Amino acid sequence: MDFSMPGLDPASDRPVFKQIADHLREAIERGSLEPGAKVPSEATLMAHYGVARMTVRSALQLLQSEGLTVAEHGRGVFVRSRPPVRRLASDRFARRHRDRGKAAFIVETEEAGGKPSVDSIQISEMDASADVAKRLGLAAQDRVVVRSRRYLINGHPVETAVSYLPAAIAGGTRIAEPDTGPGGIYARLEEMGYRLDHFDEEIKARMPLREEVKALKLAPGTPVFHLVRTAFAEDGRAVEVCDTVMSSDAYVLSYQLPAR
Amino acid sequence: MDFSMPGLDPASDRPVFKQIADHLREAIERGSLEPGAKVPSEATLMAHYGVARMTVRSALQLLQSEGLTVAEHGRGVFVRSRPPVRRLASDRFARRHRDRGKAAFIVETEEAGGKPSVDSIQISEMDASADVAKRLGLAAQDRVVVRSRRYLINGHPVETAVSYLPAAIAGGTRIAEPDTGPGGIYARLEEMGYRLDHFDEEIKARMPLREEVKALKLAPGTPVFHLVRTAFAEDGRAVEVCDTVMSSDAYVLSYQLPAR
Repeated sequence: MDFSMPGLDPASDRPVFKQIADHLREAIERGSLEPGAKVPSEATLMAHYGVARMTVRSALQLLQSEGLTVAEHGRGVFVRSRPPVRRLASDRFARRHRDRGKAAFIVETEEAGGKPSVDSIQISEMDASADVAKRLGLAAQDRVVVRSRRYLINGHPVETAVSYLPAAIAGGTRIAEPDTGPGGIYARLEEMGYRLDHFDEEIKARMPLREEVKALKLAPGTPVFHLVRTAFAEDGRAVEVCDTVMSSDAYVLSYQLPAR
Repeated sequence: MDFSMPGLDPASDRPVFKQIADHLREAIERGSLEPGAKVPSEATLMAHYGVARMTVRSALQLLQSEGLTVAEHGRGVFVRSRPPVRRLASDRFARRHRDRGKAAFIVETEEAGGKPSVDSIQISEMDASADVAKRLGLAAQDRVVVRSRRYLINGHPVETAVSYLPAAIAGGTRIAEPDTGPGGIYARLEEMGYRLDHFDEEIKARMPLREEVKALKLAPGTPVFHLVRTAFAEDGRAVEVCDTVMSSDAYVLSYQLPAR
């Protein structure tokens, strides 16, 4: 092992598995086990401490429940890397940002010194669900263009998003292609004459579903923000609904409320 | 027992504790066990099913981990009552609401048909923490008036809030008394000449601390919103910081973002 680890204290009334967890936790906190580093294997820890596998497993389980480590199937246990927190500003969708020719996610992540990427882009057309139809002011079963994708910072997934746009607006346009071009969906909508007026955002917090844990590589005990944004054009028409799930580890949301 | 409960299915390959949990879950879902109702005791369930205490405990544990029941120490297990969800509108602190002479929480809860109450009101004066001083633009160790309280809907706690105001503004005023009077803190500030301009809100989601679980009577697996709001007067001065912890069960937050 490349970090110093004390032996057990036989006089302590602290259970052995907790002592082992304490040692590993201290190594993580002091940085001798860095984010992303592999935690010594069960076999290594058993040999080092002279304890049974169950004891080592209890120690590792404890660290995982504290959100300090992540087990990767077949690869071992790793110190959890937390992505840099993305602070979402209350003017994040203002036109002056859109006009810079990049999507908000790309601009903000780069400004914060992170490396943004987007993957798992999937595009389809389908009947609107009752909820989406209601939010977009469509009739039940009107067609919508559906764009889903995943956002990553420094290779770590932080958010999944699914946009729904009326097919009557977005069908056959660049919005229905994998690369929506400079400025993204909102820039394309404005070019098509749908000048944007405002966005409504609705936020819930909850524990993630199993597939969300997987898509966002969430550590145990990490809730998600479930945020649904509706974009309104200047004529009052809803032109997009974006349904997002964000790791609560990776985001601080900020908003400004009027007092007048 | 005052609800019909089937016996076990000996031919099923579903473990016995899951079968018992299934029966109780169905009774909860169909409403024969209503929110707030006491779940049959361990002894009753043991006798009804002819199983060991551990089996009954596993079944009850499963329901609790699903957020369907709550164990109250020494009193038994109860079907969890979920408070009505409070939807926070993006204009919730607009002056037209404040002018109605009640605090936003009271007005909104009554409009939604709920019974609002506030308890655990505590008022003190102390040195500002580094974070509060920064948000209020104070020097380190400037004094602040601290008002903490808990908000309840239909007797169920939904939010704790701690407001910090510069003692130079709020000290010795009605803001430092248990009853702040009609319209609450914000109405008093405006009467004192601090016309409010806007509020900044910053939102995180996380699992609750142990004392938050207690104060908000949170069921297992319920994250909280941690929301910090800063109130700004028209001259740009920050006049209040309100640090709140809200049950994610009880709130949907909504905001409007500009597109221009």
